[in-house]
Amino acid sequence: MITAASNSRLKKLIRLNQKAKARREEDVFLAEGVKMFLEAPAEKIREVYIAESFAPDGPCREKLLQTGCEVVADSLFSRISDTCTPQGILCVVEQFHYNIEELLSSAAPLLLLLENIQDPGNLGTMLRTGEGAGIDGVIMSRDTVDIYNPKTIRSTMGSIYRVPFFYTDDLAGAVGLVQKAGIRVYAAHLDGRQWHTQPDYRKGTAFLIGNEGNGLRQETARLSDSYIKIPMEGKVESLNAGIASAILLYEAQRQRREV
Amino acid sequence: MITAASNSRLKKLIRLNQKAKARREEDVFLAEGVKMFLEAPAEKIREVYIAESFAPDGPCREKLLQTGCEVVADSLFSRISDTCTPQGILCVVEQFHYNIEELLSSAAPLLLLLENIQDPGNLGTMLRTGEGAGIDGVIMSRDTVDIYNPKTIRSTMGSIYRVPFFYTDDLAGAVGLVQKAGIRVYAAHLDGRQWHTQPDYRKGTAFLIGNEGNGLRQETARLSDSYIKIPMEGKVESLNAGIASAILLYEAQRQRREV
Repeated sequence: MITAASNSRLKKLIRLNQKAKARREEDVFLAEGVKMFLEAPAEKIREVYIAESFAPDGPCREKLLQTGCEVVADSLFSRISDTCTPQGILCVVEQFHYNIEELLSSAAPLLLLLENIQDPGNLGTMLRTGEGAGIDGVIMSRDTVDIYNPKTIRSTMGSIYRVPFFYTDDLAGAVGLVQKAGIRVYAAHLDGRQWHTQPDYRKGTAFLIGNEGNGLRQETARLSDSYIKIPMEGKVESLNAGIASAILLYEAQRQRREV
Repeated sequence: MITAASNSRLKKLIRLNQKAKARREEDVFLAEGVKMFLEAPAEKIREVYIAESFAPDGPCREKLLQTGCEVVADSLFSRISDTCTPQGILCVVEQFHYNIEELLSSAAPLLLLLENIQDPGNLGTMLRTGEGAGIDGVIMSRDTVDIYNPKTIRSTMGSIYRVPFFYTDDLAGAVGLVQKAGIRVYAAHLDGRQWHTQPDYRKGTAFLIGNEGNGLRQETARLSDSYIKIPMEGKVESLNAGIASAILLYEAQRQRREV
């Protein structure tokens, strides 16, 4: 059992919690809570930590027998947790490495292309909603928040394990690849002259979504095949980026379901 | 200029920031930032505070001439602010008092009925998205988070000033009133046997949305006229409450726009 604050594994976990760089160097991330532990692919789990007082239920106990675990004194567990009321279980999971080609390989892909999303919770919610709507993957500009941020991981509610994603240093190049694969790229943009419900999304479709405060950079928006606009009544000037993604993805889902 | 941490107005503002009870007793709330100040109805603004170094632009200067303001030393302004990087302007605004009847009076109302929503940002986003989709109002169970919480106010992006809302001690009674007004009540529910895109939302429509973690209480869900289900692919068990509201409201908006 880990009982000393000076324990080197504890210190490493704290760094993994706080620093994207530490996560990148170790090629892992932290996933906290029972649901995140149960849904983690067993072959990806490197280490599991439980608080002294953690009482696993049946499925949890069974999986712990497979993975093994290290016990941490209750008083120290909160230091490695990212939440105010830790559930008492946390695992170190290997990072995912997808090729961009994997994201483009289905018959009529549905994709999110994200530029400079900064809110970790927003990004996690996009993955969760995306999985619900049936996306093939998420492509992100390098300046998007780290997808392995504990807040992002938590708000994916497990979708991090299942939705393929790819960071690119060259978003323009990635948009080009997407288009070359026969996928039409739509930019959510205030200058759009068609409503978001007008295009046919049953073919390969990618939605370009920009930063929460500033929207898409002009040069990025221009790469798209069409601008689309979500109607807004009242004095609303824009929608939250996660909300806009959800509305677009579920419009695509609606059209595809009705085929 | 306020320069002492012991200043009684400063202390009052800190209380208003932190305590729903203090806001209720004074019948006010705090709205922070340039956008929130500019969009606040002038007749509702009781006091305005700006940081010493705040440099108002044209529209802001003009409105400050109308409202007057009190200057706060930069070192103290962060204490009355709810953000990490304060914009340097904050106003005390009178609370709104709507009757439930006002929310039901249009020809074919579109409403959100919320039970025990706990995340302040989620609630604010629902107001913002709701205004965008053209809702007539939001009815909330009393145990829903305080709509005047600074995080809620901020995430409304100004919709707090324009979307009518009503807290009720008796959500079941309120659902009854809504139904009596000829409005059909739909509960987003996993047991739904029709997709959320199937009903006709062009008539009076209300969506019942439950708590983020637990969904609707069974006895509340049973009050609805129909259950509807948002399709979810992969292993997604539920969507974020704000996301689910957005998908439902924009489906209603789509149907109504296409009339």
